[in-house]
Amino acid sequence: MNPVIISAALTGVAANREQCPALPYTPAQIAAEALRAAEAGAAIVHIHGREDDGRPSWRVEVFQEIADRIRAESDVILNFSTGAIGVPVADRLDHITEVRPEIGALNMGSMNYAIYGKKSKQFHLDAVFANPFRDIIAFLEGMNGAGVRPELECFDVGHVASVAPLIDLGHLKPPLQFSLIHGVLGGVPATVESLVAMVRQLPAGANWQAIAVRLEQWPMVAAALALGGHVRVGLEDNYHLARGQVANSNAELVEKAARMAADIGRPLASVSQTRELLQL
Amino acid sequence: MNPVIISAALTGVAANREQCPALPYTPAQIAAEALRAAEAGAAIVHIHGREDDGRPSWRVEVFQEIADRIRAESDVILNFSTGAIGVPVADRLDHITEVRPEIGALNMGSMNYAIYGKKSKQFHLDAVFANPFRDIIAFLEGMNGAGVRPELECFDVGHVASVAPLIDLGHLKPPLQFSLIHGVLGGVPATVESLVAMVRQLPAGANWQAIAVRLEQWPMVAAALALGGHVRVGLEDNYHLARGQVANSNAELVEKAARMAADIGRPLASVSQTRELLQL
Amino acid sequence: MNPVIISAALTGVAANREQCPALPYTPAQIAAEALRAAEAGAAIVHIHGREDDGRPSWRVEVFQEIADRIRAESDVILNFSTGAIGVPVADRLDHITEVRPEIGALNMGSMNYAIYGKKSKQFHLDAVFANPFRDIIAFLEGMNGAGVRPELECFDVGHVASVAPLIDLGHLKPPLQFSLIHGVLGGVPATVESLVAMVRQLPAGANWQAIAVRLEQWPMVAAALALGGHVRVGLEDNYHLARGQVANSNAELVEKAARMAADIGRPLASVSQTRELLQL
Amino acid sequence: MNPVIISAALTGVAANREQCPALPYTPAQIAAEALRAAEAGAAIVHIHGREDDGRPSWRVEVFQEIADRIRAESDVILNFSTGAIGVPVADRLDHITEVRPEIGALNMGSMNYAIYGKKSKQFHLDAVFANPFRDIIAFLEGMNGAGVRPELECFDVGHVASVAPLIDLGHLKPPLQFSLIHGVLGGVPATVESLVAMVRQLPAGANWQAIAVRLEQWPMVAAALALGGHVRVGLEDNYHLARGQVANSNAELVEKAARMAADIGRPLASVSQTRELLQL
Repeated sequence: MNPVIISAALTGVAANREQCPALPYTPAQIAAEALRAAEAGAAIVHIHGREDDGRPSWRVEVFQEIADRIRAESDVILNFSTGAIGVPVADRLDHITEVRPEIGALNMGSMNYAIYGKKSKQFHLDAVFANPFRDIIAFLEGMNGAGVRPELECFDVGHVASVAPLIDLGHLKPPLQFSLIHGVLGGVPATVESLVAMVRQLPAGANWQAIAVRLEQWPMVAAALALGGHVRVGLEDNYHLARGQVANSNAELVEKAARMAADIGRPLASVSQTRELLQL
Repeated sequence: MNPVIISAALTGVAANREQCPALPYTPAQIAAEALRAAEAGAAIVHIHGREDDGRPSWRVEVFQEIADRIRAESDVILNFSTGAIGVPVADRLDHITEVRPEIGALNMGSMNYAIYGKKSKQFHLDAVFANPFRDIIAFLEGMNGAGVRPELECFDVGHVASVAPLIDLGHLKPPLQFSLIHGVLGGVPATVESLVAMVRQLPAGANWQAIAVRLEQWPMVAAALALGGHVRVGLEDNYHLARGQVANSNAELVEKAARMAADIGRPLASVSQTRELLQL
Repeated sequence: MNPVIISAALTGVAANREQCPALPYTPAQIAAEALRAAEAGAAIVHIHGREDDGRPSWRVEVFQEIADRIRAESDVILNFSTGAIGVPVADRLDHITEVRPEIGALNMGSMNYAIYGKKSKQFHLDAVFANPFRDIIAFLEGMNGAGVRPELECFDVGHVASVAPLIDLGHLKPPLQFSLIHGVLGGVPATVESLVAMVRQLPAGANWQAIAVRLEQWPMVAAALALGGHVRVGLEDNYHLARGQVANSNAELVEKAARMAADIGRPLASVSQTRELLQL
Repeated sequence: MNPVIISAALTGVAANREQCPALPYTPAQIAAEALRAAEAGAAIVHIHGREDDGRPSWRVEVFQEIADRIRAESDVILNFSTGAIGVPVADRLDHITEVRPEIGALNMGSMNYAIYGKKSKQFHLDAVFANPFRDIIAFLEGMNGAGVRPELECFDVGHVASVAPLIDLGHLKPPLQFSLIHGVLGGVPATVESLVAMVRQLPAGANWQAIAVRLEQWPMVAAALALGGHVRVGLEDNYHLARGQVANSNAELVEKAARMAADIGRPLASVSQTRELLQL
């Protein structure tokens, strides 16, 4: 079977240390987690910036320090986030064009982004995640100019279909690389059927990985591995190794994904194999 | 085979008389089109309000006059729109609670709502259609209070999945009634695969109709009829009977849908059968 | 939308004149039906041989006379059947290699082939339709030697998957041409889902048409047209234009399929376009 | 997530000790393997009879001795095979009606059953696996009379659809229990898409497990676990833990399946839970 690329989403911006003590905040901590994840088998690290107290950060210096620290020790592939609700595009682009990671994540559509508590019977989050085409194009121009590969983040079938005009306009060129994200209320649920529907919508020849949040991640990892796709794990998406068992590091989550891949017969793609597979 | 319910979307707000001279603007014109559509086989008429010059209108008097004129002549089922970009919820609810149509359309999620011209290589529309859960709940409370059945408009798989918390909260109760809309850039494309993926996401026992815009509507009507679903046609969604052939009335479009239904062996649901099928 | 190729299955061997008075038996009758079907829009005629009293016939002279009579008047494409239960392969191949139609139908797998009556609560047919690979290969060798294109008849997903070793052995080469058959008890049922599952299993670049038996044919024709596939109709598969309405000729069935194609926006492929599309 | 039932297919009839030294032949060996598999987490053991030299056996005494030995030590659920190519139905039914396992496997359709070697470019097996409805009904009458639950073995979508007349005739009654088998040439290939297509064809409320042969089994186990289904492993289906690594016992394969289940969050169903879930 084909090798699997594991990405580690190291920290995100939503979870905090009360929930998961292993969450890295500072550049040094994030870089240390990146190295441990790479050691465990991750070929790509997906990175959000944080201030030292854990708040989200889009400061270029933060991303620069993270990159410098990782690059000094490892050739693991850097993937920077650009997604946020309520932050202007300009503020979410400079770290891409200045620090130049190999990959930049890019949201391909708008949606409700909500969290509902079945026990509390309340919406804990009820946001509109707005990513109109003009913003997507601004990001693509920035990434294309900086030689950064866009990773097309899709939370629904229509987001995948939205690549068509961007290809037609020349903003997007093969090889295309997708993240198919499951389990966020407002987007597709974490079901095998949803994953299959998204995969079928992909342009021919596209690379893809599956992402899912919370504990539903693990069955979606299994399904993606069986379908021949790549997978992302990490404290950002789900910090539980199993119900009630909080991970002590991103590396533990990567190790589990690697074991699941080995169990179905897929070897891990090394960093250099990953560069080749994704034509980075 | 099971009877098919045809809805006629009489006028919408996007198209104009330069594009399609038959588009009704005034309440009298809209009502006349409703009667002709009902005569041709439509059991439900989906209605947007317009001012006499064609601009969109949310004025209660406009909807009241339309309803009065139709009800005086026909028992066809009234379905009022509530969807708009950039208009406050409050302004889009009064016509529902005061005129009390049997059905009110209700958008179940946020999305990009865009139009891209392949020839012009331009986006002619690049909007974020924002429908956060708090707005959806406001509409549901209004509709439930007024005894109006919500028709759940879904442009993507995640919109269908978004009914779960609303059911859990008691805002939505069976029978559930869905519109599955295809071909709007930002939502699912007009493909049989997309329709099948949406249908599979529906709660058990739900009623559904397919909607698609522009000429791609006709193959989607065929697919929906073959899948056992209901269909919507009308000048709002697509005013072409065929490429280059603009319809002279909603009735012509309804007649074509009725012929397509007959060709695959599905009889038309009468107005009273429709009330029974939808438990109105 | 892409042009649609309509095939007419003129007579088959199962139905008789008590059921459908228009069924052709003699070569002259079959040829006359072929010409009428071609006139109505069929680009391909699928032909079984019959003796003058209606019994199935595999005699070469019968097929030769049918071919001669059609070729004298029309360039419609000839497609000869090879399928039967309980007849040796050798007896079902000579008419192919000697009369050399452009296309020969070829069953790609074994299955139960049964008819169950819900009213009678009985199996009216309970046969094993045996087509082991050695038989398939014998047919392919005969067809390849005679320059006859095999049309790969698949009644189930596994039949489609069975092309793999035949491609590997060189017995099958692109362009591949499939018939996906629905509604025979023992094979896939006549549902849109089954059709989609079969289409997904096809090798890239394959041509395909949908076939379905009895009245369920018409919704399957609609679904196939919407999916971009080609269609087969004709007295062999279903001699009802609608419930209770027996067709007076194959031409009537072809006309109906042509109208359904026009309704969704697909033009008919002419005979010469069909040769080009199928690379005959 | 819902508990998963693991079945262990202990020995089959196709593989031999040259290929896998752990394969049990004698009743004592088969019973010992059953106990080890149950210890490792299997709730059901699927059993074929063999003579002491490894040849297939349908002798009642063989099955009786196996059952006696297992029942003396364990309450694991017994599932006896009835499937064979070229053996009369009568010879494959007595062990069911006399030894009365809780479950009897029952093939639901005919198909090609073939093995093709890509390296040798040869068919190593090219059989027609014939299971006409009259045979299926004979088995059902035997099983129903003996109080044995039929496990409906389906190698293709049409096999699943074939339950309809049997339900209509009263030969099959809920709860229905299916095995969906992948990877046999002639039936569906071992792909997630095939599994999803089969699952969709199931009657509402049916229980199902996935089976796949050779190394492709492991990704199919992962997919079935993610879809909420049950799984079968065992030396009959695939005696490799991983490429090049032959299992030393059925227990090792069950342990691996149990680990994969735990990794995605599904607990094992105990024997008593299994009886409850399957309403045995």
